[in-house]
Amino acid sequence: MNEAVAGIDIGGTNTSFGLVSREGKVLSKGTLGTRQFAEADELVHAVSADLKQQLQSLQKQYPGIRLLGAGIGAPNANPYTGMVEYAPNLSWKGLVPLEKMFSDALGTHAKITNDAKAAALGEQMFGAARGSRNFLVITLGTGLGSGIVANGEMIYGHDGFAGELGHVLVERNGRLCGCGRHGCLETYCSATGIVRTYHELKPDAAETVDSKEITRRALEGEPEAQEAYRFTGEMLGYALSNFAAITSPEMIILFGGLVKAGDLLLNPVREAFEANLLNIYRGKIKIKISELHESDAALLGSASLIYREAFKE
Amino acid sequence: MNEAVAGIDIGGTNTSFGLVSREGKVLSKGTLGTRQFAEADELVHAVSADLKQQLQSLQKQYPGIRLLGAGIGAPNANPYTGMVEYAPNLSWKGLVPLEKMFSDALGTHAKITNDAKAAALGEQMFGAARGSRNFLVITLGTGLGSGIVANGEMIYGHDGFAGELGHVLVERNGRLCGCGRHGCLETYCSATGIVRTYHELKPDAAETVDSKEITRRALEGEPEAQEAYRFTGEMLGYALSNFAAITSPEMIILFGGLVKAGDLLLNPVREAFEANLLNIYRGKIKIKISELHESDAALLGSASLIYREAFKE
Repeated sequence: MNEAVAGIDIGGTNTSFGLVSREGKVLSKGTLGTRQFAEADELVHAVSADLKQQLQSLQKQYPGIRLLGAGIGAPNANPYTGMVEYAPNLSWKGLVPLEKMFSDALGTHAKITNDAKAAALGEQMFGAARGSRNFLVITLGTGLGSGIVANGEMIYGHDGFAGELGHVLVERNGRLCGCGRHGCLETYCSATGIVRTYHELKPDAAETVDSKEITRRALEGEPEAQEAYRFTGEMLGYALSNFAAITSPEMIILFGGLVKAGDLLLNPVREAFEANLLNIYRGKIKIKISELHESDAALLGSASLIYREAFKE
Repeated sequence: MNEAVAGIDIGGTNTSFGLVSREGKVLSKGTLGTRQFAEADELVHAVSADLKQQLQSLQKQYPGIRLLGAGIGAPNANPYTGMVEYAPNLSWKGLVPLEKMFSDALGTHAKITNDAKAAALGEQMFGAARGSRNFLVITLGTGLGSGIVANGEMIYGHDGFAGELGHVLVERNGRLCGCGRHGCLETYCSATGIVRTYHELKPDAAETVDSKEITRRALEGEPEAQEAYRFTGEMLGYALSNFAAITSPEMIILFGGLVKAGDLLLNPVREAFEANLLNIYRGKIKIKISELHESDAALLGSASLIYREAFKE
């Protein structure tokens, strides 16, 4: 092995980072609490110091191995400017030039992108979308994130913020969203969305449960939890049938905690998807589950930012 | 002038064709009724014979001018296969290899695409989207067609049929569409859509009027005709606000007969667009009217298929 890429995933709660081989193996990794650093540059230096140590350890096993670059996934990251822009879920305010900060701290080339788009690029390089030039990745986390790849390229739009599928309006006068509008897809199809659905179905529940608990209950056969999954899947399948008519993808890949419910989610997604799909697309578009291990996916996605650039056809 | 491109636009009723200069000037043109030819190859030969005569005439003015290629816009055309595939509005059935047929008949390079996508490429090369790498064109004709350009490239999807924005579902259990589903955008926002709206607003009308007549009445101040435009514009603005969140375009260009109503359509479009837009896009995306003359637009769009290929950066 001659080279490795640093993959860095900055989340609202945790920041994970590690060294990734070209074959998509996470060679070493670490985690830090994002909120323990008041300023972005403190986090950047702590992460970079740890990555340098990881590289030194790796050099014992692979003498001469060098860092090819650092790929960073972060919320509200703009790949055109290299900055995190006004991230509501991070404590640093305004514009933060994270790409340059990591490049300086690590002494290497750095590239930043939005976390859901990093996940999509990771699927393309290492996961379920290997070899595909037209696909969507939908991340079902606290919100609903997405990455749209068309003609082999990530769609960033003219300002760097394309692919906000979580904020496509699916219900007029629907649920209130964090963005201030009503009826956004992510108010239904996300970890927080299914919690709202479950508690609407079970208004007398003694305590608020989280999406993991709903998944557990659904897999155990609780009718309300299963119905929450059915409703979530139906909403998602309906929305996906509309997205299909826009970019006509070869496949749609679902990622995140909710997909652990398996067929409880997938069956209603696929059913609503095919039922609402324009005839010319029927039977052509696969709905798949991510093939990346959840804990590695963010690092692989971030690292793929560098590998795809370095090894472009 | 050393070269010209043949632009060919095949419609359900008329086929128009002509020679186009690199600057976007239609140098000569002709029209034939599409339905007077039972078979595709009869139409191809009639159009090609006429184009050859046009070229001969042009050679008197510009000795040595040669044909660089032929661009063809046609309904249900697949740019990946070069074929028109199962076009419901044409009398030829099944798969018709129109690209190869024109290439053979004219003895030149030929490229085919869907008619709305040709319009979008024409706007990019000669019209309102000059210099833009991220935009949408919406054609408001019998149906609603569209071309989506992202990263400077037309989005065709994995099968060649991306960009069916007219068949995005905007109302659950809405109007019946020709595709067999209910609530497609084009059942509201198109020449036929506004006719349906107008007659719903005026159920006691003595006779069915067409969209041109509705435009005339709206411009004259008839309240039902104006309300039909307001409703159409609001539906369109709402839908466009969702499309914006997908590809984050720099501009959205509206094309077709309905835009002749001017602000009667545009004001409610812009109002509903901004009102429903996710905050990060607000004030950033221009909604424009096509800058191409309607009778030339299809030829310019088809011709641009060849010019964009010949003069790629």
